[in-house]
Amino acid sequence: MEKITSNQNSRVKDWKRMQTKKGRVKSGQYVIEGWHIVDEAIRHRQTIKELMVVDESYLGALPVDDTTQVFIITPEIAKHISSTETPQGVFAVLDTQDYHEKIPDELQGAWLLLDNIQDPGNIGTMVRTADAAGLDGIVFGKGSADIYNPKVVRSMQGSQFHMKLFTGDILDWMAAFQNAGIKTYGTELNDQAVSYDTVKPTSQFALVMGNEGNGVDPEILEKTDQNLYIPMKGEAESLNVAVATGILLFKFVK
Amino acid sequence: MEKITSNQNSRVKDWKRMQTKKGRVKSGQYVIEGWHIVDEAIRHRQTIKELMVVDESYLGALPVDDTTQVFIITPEIAKHISSTETPQGVFAVLDTQDYHEKIPDELQGAWLLLDNIQDPGNIGTMVRTADAAGLDGIVFGKGSADIYNPKVVRSMQGSQFHMKLFTGDILDWMAAFQNAGIKTYGTELNDQAVSYDTVKPTSQFALVMGNEGNGVDPEILEKTDQNLYIPMKGEAESLNVAVATGILLFKFVK
Repeated sequence: MEKITSNQNSRVKDWKRMQTKKGRVKSGQYVIEGWHIVDEAIRHRQTIKELMVVDESYLGALPVDDTTQVFIITPEIAKHISSTETPQGVFAVLDTQDYHEKIPDELQGAWLLLDNIQDPGNIGTMVRTADAAGLDGIVFGKGSADIYNPKVVRSMQGSQFHMKLFTGDILDWMAAFQNAGIKTYGTELNDQAVSYDTVKPTSQFALVMGNEGNGVDPEILEKTDQNLYIPMKGEAESLNVAVATGILLFKFVK
Repeated sequence: MEKITSNQNSRVKDWKRMQTKKGRVKSGQYVIEGWHIVDEAIRHRQTIKELMVVDESYLGALPVDDTTQVFIITPEIAKHISSTETPQGVFAVLDTQDYHEKIPDELQGAWLLLDNIQDPGNIGTMVRTADAAGLDGIVFGKGSADIYNPKVVRSMQGSQFHMKLFTGDILDWMAAFQNAGIKTYGTELNDQAVSYDTVKPTSQFALVMGNEGNGVDPEILEKTDQNLYIPMKGEAESLNVAVATGILLFKFVK
């Protein structure tokens, strides 16, 4: 156990750098923060490289292995390395998994594909929703925020420990789903789309959700088996993309 | 039309003060910002007291009445009065409606009741979702963020122009719904709750959603006609409250 009291400490600088994608790629590590997520990481037996707390008494509730390096940091350092305004004072460093860029040979189950989803809070909420719905995997398509972005990590609330997160080209993935006989769905608002409640619950599908402002890339929509819309009964013109994902997944998943 | 170039201008100070509840209560006004929301306000014939833009050329796309006072402001002022990091440079001042504290004599339709929902982004998204689902009204219960909080306003995306937003004591409202023969539902995670998909779509109901961390107040849950839960098929322990609201409302509304 080591006490650190200065923002100028080289470890503190490393943690701070992990807030950026460049820093995460260079170190191969990322920071999680907050009681719930650190607790989830421990429960799911993730390898915790470093654990940082502002109060030694916190350690009793955080049963880590002997291999974990433990640091007591000051509230100022907590604030400095946190991505929130009011840090809880509990942090851990984990290895980033590789970005799982290879499409599995045997594709099956229910999948969510993210096309150019930009808001990290939306992405994290979508991952958590897909986790709650029991999906088998998620693909972060191009333009979508980074899996290990601190805001994505915060709103995923540990779902990355429960399910596999891939990155890749959505068109390649769609071709693979179609080869595997798994039906692909897009979401759009036009005449070719059909209402989502015509879809029967099933255990095998791939759903593409698109950019908050522009929706799913037209090139992708052309290649799906079916495009869907959610009928609006009121006056709002659109739903938040994470809310729409929840409505669709909880209707689809058998 | 008037040009304002200094943050020290008394109007700029008024607009800045409207970011706080105290300032809004004192002036009876609030600021909306961004093209989409200002456009919604114009389309829905809201009385726009003041319109502020950073570029005179914007005015062509913003057809306001002669009674609206128009101001050209600098990008620095826009940044100063904005609640976002990257303001679009289009703002308007509207009257806050009264907070609609009186329960209507003839209650009917489908309603969403917010019990102690704290995150303004969640609240705004829930209002927008309820609007999309075609609900008749929303009640902001105690502990919930203020209707005219800038972040609530931003994520409502103009839904306050489509539907009536009330504030009040949820227990009083529940009694009124029960008097009117409208079934009330709570959401919880325990043995007394039943799965939400047992509810048949209907045009009359009142759904209570609760605090992000603690759920609905137990005193409220005791008085509902039925409490519901959303079965989780995966490992995530909970859903974001706005996502859960979407899943429930799009299942319930006939």
